[in-house]
Amino acid sequence: MDFPSPARAQAIAQLVRPRSIAIIGASSDLAKVNGRPLKHLLGKGYTGRILPVNPKYTEIAGLTCYPNVAALPEVPDLAVVVVPAAEVLHSIAALGERGVRSAVIFSSGFAEMGPAGKALEVAVLARARACGMVICGPNCLGFINAFDNVYATFSQYADGDTGAGPIAFVTQSGAFGTAIAALARQRELGLGYFINTGNEADLSFCELMEAVLEDPRIQVAAGYLEGLHDGASLVRLAQHCQILEKPLVLIKVGRLEAGARAAASHTGALAVQDAVFDAVVRQYGILRARNEEQMLDMLEALSQPRVPMGKGLGIVTQSGGAGVMMADRAQELGLDVAQLAPETRSRLAEVVPAFGAIGNPVDVTGQFVARPDLFRQAVVRLMEDPKVHVCLVWLQLMTAHVDQLVQIFIDIGRSTTKPFFVSWVAAPSPALVQLRAAGIVVFRAGECAVEAASALIRHHGYRRAAALSGHPRLDLAATMPLDWNPGLQNSVSAAACLRAAGIPMAEVALAQDEEQAVALWREMGRPVAMKIESPDIAHKTEVGGVRLALAQESDVRTAYRELLAGARRALPMARLIGVLVQPMVQGRQELVVGVQRDPVFGMMVMVGIGGILVEVLKDIALRRAPFDIDEGLHMLAELRAGAVLDGVRGQPAADRRQLAALLSRLSVWAAGMQEVLAELDLNPVILTPEGPVAVDCVMILDRLSASAGPMPTPVPPEYTQ
Amino acid sequence: MDFPSPARAQAIAQLVRPRSIAIIGASSDLAKVNGRPLKHLLGKGYTGRILPVNPKYTEIAGLTCYPNVAALPEVPDLAVVVVPAAEVLHSIAALGERGVRSAVIFSSGFAEMGPAGKALEVAVLARARACGMVICGPNCLGFINAFDNVYATFSQYADGDTGAGPIAFVTQSGAFGTAIAALARQRELGLGYFINTGNEADLSFCELMEAVLEDPRIQVAAGYLEGLHDGASLVRLAQHCQILEKPLVLIKVGRLEAGARAAASHTGALAVQDAVFDAVVRQYGILRARNEEQMLDMLEALSQPRVPMGKGLGIVTQSGGAGVMMADRAQELGLDVAQLAPETRSRLAEVVPAFGAIGNPVDVTGQFVARPDLFRQAVVRLMEDPKVHVCLVWLQLMTAHVDQLVQIFIDIGRSTTKPFFVSWVAAPSPALVQLRAAGIVVFRAGECAVEAASALIRHHGYRRAAALSGHPRLDLAATMPLDWNPGLQNSVSAAACLRAAGIPMAEVALAQDEEQAVALWREMGRPVAMKIESPDIAHKTEVGGVRLALAQESDVRTAYRELLAGARRALPMARLIGVLVQPMVQGRQELVVGVQRDPVFGMMVMVGIGGILVEVLKDIALRRAPFDIDEGLHMLAELRAGAVLDGVRGQPAADRRQLAALLSRLSVWAAGMQEVLAELDLNPVILTPEGPVAVDCVMILDRLSASAGPMPTPVPPEYTQ
Repeated sequence: MDFPSPARAQAIAQLVRPRSIAIIGASSDLAKVNGRPLKHLLGKGYTGRILPVNPKYTEIAGLTCYPNVAALPEVPDLAVVVVPAAEVLHSIAALGERGVRSAVIFSSGFAEMGPAGKALEVAVLARARACGMVICGPNCLGFINAFDNVYATFSQYADGDTGAGPIAFVTQSGAFGTAIAALARQRELGLGYFINTGNEADLSFCELMEAVLEDPRIQVAAGYLEGLHDGASLVRLAQHCQILEKPLVLIKVGRLEAGARAAASHTGALAVQDAVFDAVVRQYGILRARNEEQMLDMLEALSQPRVPMGKGLGIVTQSGGAGVMMADRAQELGLDVAQLAPETRSRLAEVVPAFGAIGNPVDVTGQFVARPDLFRQAVVRLMEDPKVHVCLVWLQLMTAHVDQLVQIFIDIGRSTTKPFFVSWVAAPSPALVQLRAAGIVVFRAGECAVEAASALIRHHGYRRAAALSGHPRLDLAATMPLDWNPGLQNSVSAAACLRAAGIPMAEVALAQDEEQAVALWREMGRPVAMKIESPDIAHKTEVGGVRLALAQESDVRTAYRELLAGARRALPMARLIGVLVQPMVQGRQELVVGVQRDPVFGMMVMVGIGGILVEVLKDIALRRAPFDIDEGLHMLAELRAGAVLDGVRGQPAADRRQLAALLSRLSVWAAGMQEVLAELDLNPVILTPEGPVAVDCVMILDRLSASAGPMPTPVPPEYTQ
Repeated sequence: MDFPSPARAQAIAQLVRPRSIAIIGASSDLAKVNGRPLKHLLGKGYTGRILPVNPKYTEIAGLTCYPNVAALPEVPDLAVVVVPAAEVLHSIAALGERGVRSAVIFSSGFAEMGPAGKALEVAVLARARACGMVICGPNCLGFINAFDNVYATFSQYADGDTGAGPIAFVTQSGAFGTAIAALARQRELGLGYFINTGNEADLSFCELMEAVLEDPRIQVAAGYLEGLHDGASLVRLAQHCQILEKPLVLIKVGRLEAGARAAASHTGALAVQDAVFDAVVRQYGILRARNEEQMLDMLEALSQPRVPMGKGLGIVTQSGGAGVMMADRAQELGLDVAQLAPETRSRLAEVVPAFGAIGNPVDVTGQFVARPDLFRQAVVRLMEDPKVHVCLVWLQLMTAHVDQLVQIFIDIGRSTTKPFFVSWVAAPSPALVQLRAAGIVVFRAGECAVEAASALIRHHGYRRAAALSGHPRLDLAATMPLDWNPGLQNSVSAAACLRAAGIPMAEVALAQDEEQAVALWREMGRPVAMKIESPDIAHKTEVGGVRLALAQESDVRTAYRELLAGARRALPMARLIGVLVQPMVQGRQELVVGVQRDPVFGMMVMVGIGGILVEVLKDIALRRAPFDIDEGLHMLAELRAGAVLDGVRGQPAADRRQLAALLSRLSVWAAGMQEVLAELDLNPVILTPEGPVAVDCVMILDRLSASAGPMPTPVPPEYTQ
């Protein structure tokens, strides 16, 4: 996605914050789809001009109704189009002629109905584009801007209270999105914006989210995604959120729309598309929720203003078991269940009954039922511990003490600036109402609270790390000479190219006859590996095209002859260029590193630990190119079997930073190669005492697309140092 | 746990279903802990005799109050003891003298308070045992038998409606248990029994659960566990549930009480205790819930009467995204999202809009808002598909159509005998009330419904498998000759012992001088491995005590001398017996197999795939001994990297059944060795073309405990065939 032009940006801003709204096809029956926007605009107090258009009426609900667009007394900021599909093109044309710059189209009967509908949608879009008009939809529920009482929607969600709040919610699904919005309302989480994007003929999920994020009244972005065409727009959205310091929480179900995927290479086949999405989420500081309830739990924590200064969790409960369950979950999520200072423990011991627990989690025991103030005393003492950054309290029922407890929690909240959340299982309804009114965040179970605290901590951790690293986004260019052809590249040139990009490649040379092979072996002065070289053979081992550890002249000669003969037998049509000769590389562990071009997110770099870990367990980490060394270190930390890098069975540890630097340099190079690189495999990359060395390389290039400009020059490796 | 004696069983039955109840220490203030049982017994209509005892009153709430136990006009079935801790021993003694056989003690101030309290608890228990009295508690909330209106409790849960139902709920935590019970009430899930076990001085969680399961009005057992002393009692409970065909759902938090754990051996160190619990859960058909909400979701599905005949799930939604989310979760849980028959698809196509989906999940689209009957038509058609065994429907909001939808769901329920659940997000309250009244199970989100369906399917799958296998529990005896000493066993004898138990062991012989080593090598007629043998060296590789692939006489001689010299250098004090000589075993994959004695569950058999998978990823499977070959196959199926058994990189697949037979035979042997075997490691077990062969064996025996009887004879291997 390119940045929107100023005119487009202006049109989008007008769409979501219109000062006047025309309703094309408005009905006088305010219960119908085409009557409902009017009902809500009037009922909920929209203060701009409302201009119904329908030749059947001269007046609806006390407003003048205009027979057609041309008759409108002014040019509205927004048109809500609720006519049948067949009339939409006409309406858009008329609106365009009047100079209207934004429209939301509810009507269905477009791309979702098949080719004929798709053609109609394309025609509508072309007409809108020609007039400089932006469109939300078609086939959508429309949207709500609850701050300004803009109800350009027929969603059932608008039927109830839609109090504005700091959350912008954008959804690709109408039905699921309505459900989530209704659940948010049950929790009194205010949605400042609710937008259903429909077919996204023009405005996409990311573009609409970016537009509403600019609103200073919005503090948190929440989205429900089913598919993405353009991964770069999501990356840009995430970066935008980062700059604005507003967290972005997403649910994504199902698969990304990938179109036909290039035949997967040996390593490429491991990367499923959801893994790509998940990698991007981790890389760009997006928070991914597993389902609607988890998203809402996260939003509870993220829309309160307090900032955790670390990942230390303090837990106080009236039940030891609940504390253990919460501590287990915290550990799973990588939080610290803080070890308390001796002073904290002794201050807790002053108030907690002897059969309780003064470690963390703190258990105030059933004594609390008789002495609710135990909570105040214990929590205040716990939160004074410097290692506690967020505090969670767990309790249940207590129907008889609601007022007293609410006051206690309010007092606790006032006693500290640290985030403080309540988990109240089977809470009496008045307690929820009073706590929310007092700005205290309250969850329905212990694990939810831990997950929400984790989201808050991760958001601020990522935000701080991004602020600290302070490096500009890498500005990239490619490294490929102009004279290369599409397809599998020859190994010697490919290695040279990668070496120029700063990747440590093992020495390799091509022998085109047996004598040359012997001469190379002699020159290298140590045992060699020999491999068949052919533009038609990507995976040499699969045709028996590799011989290792050849130490004698006779071995080299035999290998040369056998490799050629074997390859001819296996693939009679293959063009055999010769045999590669390489000094043997000794190491203690092998890795697999690769680059693949994802149809949605572009160049993705992959690393895995060689052997069955990659083949059977699919233990790999992915990142979108380019990225820096720190991100490379995060990739290594993600490998489930990453501990093998630190030395098993008495082996010395690998230098993770060297490996991360290799990944980062490769990512910089790959980003520059976006237009031409179809696939790259470095398999294996051997960890030697001197650092990682790639000993085999499969590089496959695409035909340059016509639009690609001239190939730029190599990026110096210090870019990523 | 032994089976309770008939007298004890009778006393427990009297406790949970008493015909008369004395309340020792009853208060006339019915809001106090010692008044609340009386309040509920009277208020909720208990029909047996109620006998308050307190010298302060002559009458409470219209009932005669007796000054002491001796004055009681009859011997009550149950005594509720609510006096201070210091008076409990006296009360129990008096009750025992009157012939009372069961008591529940609310009072705290016992083991939970430290050594003095523990001593008091022991004294109370001794007195009760001496009178043949069973005790629930002390330090507990007591219990409810809602069928018979027995309220021997002061739990807050009793304050509201406690309508009886088919679920027995037993909890080790009072506070968390009360919370769970309150949540169950919110869902109108009836708890027939609610029992808090407290300190379990006498009656344990398992014993109380077994007692209430006998009640034919109970269909489902649900428990909340924090610790277990006696794993065998849980196994027996699970088997009892199996016989009664009643599902057992457990939450377990935290760690099992293990006491000091024997120093972990190389492989033993991998088995954390929660992994042991989890293995037992899988092995004995227990359903483990992650938290309280998941348990309640499972209980919803398990307490309805319909039985799924397979694991095929049919899903119908009004939102494509919700369907995808549910299908994802179903796949994660191992369910089949059924591929529909062509006839089903064409019948669905008759009713589902063209832009919907007629695959599974079926998406009836937003059209449903205008035509709610779409659901009836689609679901009925879907459920006629033979591959659909359970059907889930997802919808949201629909405030305006509640009555119509409820009727539709009732009609759907009547049209089929298959389980049918509704997921209704942000459901209007009247819908929940009406659906529950009509016996339709309804969840608050899509994923919950899938998880609950999965529990139902797993329960019936396990039940059917258990019924089909029909083999009696293996009846076991040990195989160890009487003349063995504690400690590390010598390798030749250990191998002979395991060979006798049917475990394929590699040939091994002991050389006590260099000439003997050469003679053994010659006799074996192929390359050999040689290993240092010492009762003081369990892990030979760690002292450099292994030499492999020795093919020449001179190599054998050198190895003999070097092994002895090396071991002397490494461990000067070790007793060196000689050197083991073994023919080299060729194979394509190595496994690690072991036995360890868990302090709670007894002998556990472990299998993992050798190398970093075990060391770094802890990829192991555990089962409690003994078990059959099918259970061995389940273990192999659980290994995350199990695919390596099926041949990676062109290797042939291993025979999983042979491997499972090895595990089963080992489990039978290990169960018989319960009293003496501290630890066994077979590492590696090599997969050869002829089957698995164990080439190294570390066997460590304990001192026989004084109570152990004479050692029995070996079990023939056909026991497990």
